[in-house]
Amino acid sequence: MQKPSIPKGTRDFTPAEMVRRNYIFDTVRTIFQKFGFQPIETPAMENLATLLGKYGEEGDKLLFRILNSGDFLSDVSEQELSEKNLNRLSLKMCEKGLRYDLTVPFARFVVQHRDEICFPFKRYQIQPVWRADRPQKGRYREFYQCDVDVVGSNSLLNEVELLQIIADVFRALNIRVVVKLNNRKILSGIAELIGQSDKITDITVAIDKLEKIGIEKVNEELLSKDLSTEAVEAIQPVIQLSGSNSEKLDQLDSLFANCATGRDGIAEIRTIFAYAKTMKIHVPIELDLTLARGLNYYTGAIFEVKAVDVQIGSICGGGRYDNLTEIFGLPDVSGVGISFGADRIYDVLTQLNAFPSRTAQTTKVLFINFGPTEEKHVLELVAYLREFDINTEIYPEAAKMKKQMAYANSKQVAYVAIVGENEMADNRISLKNMTTGEQTSVTLEEMKNQLLLNH
Amino acid sequence: MQKPSIPKGTRDFTPAEMVRRNYIFDTVRTIFQKFGFQPIETPAMENLATLLGKYGEEGDKLLFRILNSGDFLSDVSEQELSEKNLNRLSLKMCEKGLRYDLTVPFARFVVQHRDEICFPFKRYQIQPVWRADRPQKGRYREFYQCDVDVVGSNSLLNEVELLQIIADVFRALNIRVVVKLNNRKILSGIAELIGQSDKITDITVAIDKLEKIGIEKVNEELLSKDLSTEAVEAIQPVIQLSGSNSEKLDQLDSLFANCATGRDGIAEIRTIFAYAKTMKIHVPIELDLTLARGLNYYTGAIFEVKAVDVQIGSICGGGRYDNLTEIFGLPDVSGVGISFGADRIYDVLTQLNAFPSRTAQTTKVLFINFGPTEEKHVLELVAYLREFDINTEIYPEAAKMKKQMAYANSKQVAYVAIVGENEMADNRISLKNMTTGEQTSVTLEEMKNQLLLNH
Repeated sequence: MQKPSIPKGTRDFTPAEMVRRNYIFDTVRTIFQKFGFQPIETPAMENLATLLGKYGEEGDKLLFRILNSGDFLSDVSEQELSEKNLNRLSLKMCEKGLRYDLTVPFARFVVQHRDEICFPFKRYQIQPVWRADRPQKGRYREFYQCDVDVVGSNSLLNEVELLQIIADVFRALNIRVVVKLNNRKILSGIAELIGQSDKITDITVAIDKLEKIGIEKVNEELLSKDLSTEAVEAIQPVIQLSGSNSEKLDQLDSLFANCATGRDGIAEIRTIFAYAKTMKIHVPIELDLTLARGLNYYTGAIFEVKAVDVQIGSICGGGRYDNLTEIFGLPDVSGVGISFGADRIYDVLTQLNAFPSRTAQTTKVLFINFGPTEEKHVLELVAYLREFDINTEIYPEAAKMKKQMAYANSKQVAYVAIVGENEMADNRISLKNMTTGEQTSVTLEEMKNQLLLNH
Repeated sequence: MQKPSIPKGTRDFTPAEMVRRNYIFDTVRTIFQKFGFQPIETPAMENLATLLGKYGEEGDKLLFRILNSGDFLSDVSEQELSEKNLNRLSLKMCEKGLRYDLTVPFARFVVQHRDEICFPFKRYQIQPVWRADRPQKGRYREFYQCDVDVVGSNSLLNEVELLQIIADVFRALNIRVVVKLNNRKILSGIAELIGQSDKITDITVAIDKLEKIGIEKVNEELLSKDLSTEAVEAIQPVIQLSGSNSEKLDQLDSLFANCATGRDGIAEIRTIFAYAKTMKIHVPIELDLTLARGLNYYTGAIFEVKAVDVQIGSICGGGRYDNLTEIFGLPDVSGVGISFGADRIYDVLTQLNAFPSRTAQTTKVLFINFGPTEEKHVLELVAYLREFDINTEIYPEAAKMKKQMAYANSKQVAYVAIVGENEMADNRISLKNMTTGEQTSVTLEEMKNQLLLNH
């Protein structure tokens, strides 16, 4: 007899977990839709040609590959087989891989469906992705991403609407957050300023670590990447920029007096702040020049969201990218998007104890089953309540009272309804509030009204 | 430059398709919850040990297998490599496979989490499954299943609640259906009756085809399976049973006078019909003795749902099974469940033109963008409407009117709001109903009320 288990790094979700996860997904989904974003879905399996080379060498190794069905050796020669070159063999035996993120499939989707899409295209996508990462606490081989993007519009209003979405989502979830904002053009400006444009990746990778490792280690890393002492000296004022957002921007103005790229970045940030003020966005936004994220494809604004009351990595992030669809043959389509980290948000809500105790997904009332006569009577009451969309159950058999109550407790049912001989005779229901323990005698009509109120 | 494509047999879902698919999923989900069913999810990848041998030899071949990450040849000897035994090699190179259905992962889940679950366990599960079938019209390699099951209760009330769910789902979707009902015990009784219990599979496989191939071919097939002419003769009254449900049951009563198994089956069906009458289930239920379905694991009731107004296979089906968790080490857990075929339901709704024209997922109103001054004014109106959960957009830039209207049309936006210089001066909004073409001048308050009404 096999002892059942699931692959390491994957998870089952029990009803209690699902209810909580769906609370997060439903919240973001409703808000995405409120802003006119529409859902798409792409297949779990993509052609490996679509995925390979998009996530760096390391990413290629982390792709789950699907063995070709049928004769998977039909394309493999004797020599290739004996050479045992894993990479070459896997390419001959596998045409498909599991989706690694939602960004590359989305870019592929936009290009493939370009003639059906009306731009600007505002889409959201909530689906699992798979990575053959070493499993560890908080890191899984299957996890959901919630991405929301606009492609085909350069307007900064899109950036601001994403900020508004961030504000609305975390207000709805009751999580206090700070949004960190940066702009790739400012990072490029810094590199230009010190005459080291070729070193922009090294510079941003180093200053991205400021919060984690401190200024001294950052400077050490910069020097180790062959930046001159003068260059490292020159960027100190930028890294250590302090004060309010407008103070920071004023300092950058003088710093970038002769750097067009940097000035463009500042102008964009000022526009975003101005919009945020007009739109009364109710979340603190902080200019943070050390914020870089997966810099390689960001070309404009960069966002990251941190929870204020829980120590955890970023729970949402994104930015503007200009060339994502180019790899699939559609240049000059600018996009901007963010991704919500459902697993981390789940952890934050757990730590804050901020999940709602009951939702539309849980049972509102359970009728105790006392046997055939009462059951027949109760089934009519059950049908009546369900007509009002009240989640209602009757225990399927006349089990011991203790067992039926244990069932109600285990499912965190809000009310238990008791209809025995006496209640049947009086045409009433004994209704027990499972939170307070209080029990009242009510008519069906009163019961319905009470349950509809207590949503 | 690669031309983007997706693996054959898989699909992208565009926003228009997603809205329709979600309409189906949301409808079933809401009704499942109304009956106290709770969601679970299992990982896309299961250990191959969990999947292999559960779907027959043919099924094993249709499993998508995942190449082990890292050195997938580490377990393969030189000899095995040169032998090229595909089955053995794939088992050495692949530990995991993609989920083939939701039933086996559910059985695995129940056994693995038996100590956390309070029985009876009422769960639903809506997730994709993958099969390496030859792709053809209406058959995909990735498709969703919507399963709803109760395990750990023998009560026939569960069967009846599933019938009620079927009735509620298809009423909500506006699809007229007939439910076909049978019972495995009646099929076993028939085999017993003619002294051919060992041939029950052959018998049911043959009579399952009655509707498709007609009585003569069915009898030919029965004879070809080594049933005697007398035996085939003896089951004719059963196969060709006619009349109302109660007429059929009365005929079966006399037929099964000396067959306990058959009588049990009849009694169960009578109980289900009696419950259905008490509960006023508003869908025709027909006793159909030719209904068998994946008989091998059904042990009691068998259900199948057919659309009345569209020629298509079954759109929902299921039954009671007694030994599903046994393969994973938990015997004596009875369950009953049904599965809704989302793709076929989608096709039925398309043919009936019965999808709602707009849903909560689509944009209610788009504000035309006339430039910075108007935009600033409009952004406040947009924010106000969104506070009332009205899906609202503003075009992100001051593009040509024609382009903005084309965008509204393409997204099937219900209303377009025009706020130019004049409207700003009057503090009013020109609101165009995109269905009727009618344009009215309204205040923000009036607009809000109108949009909230027209849900």
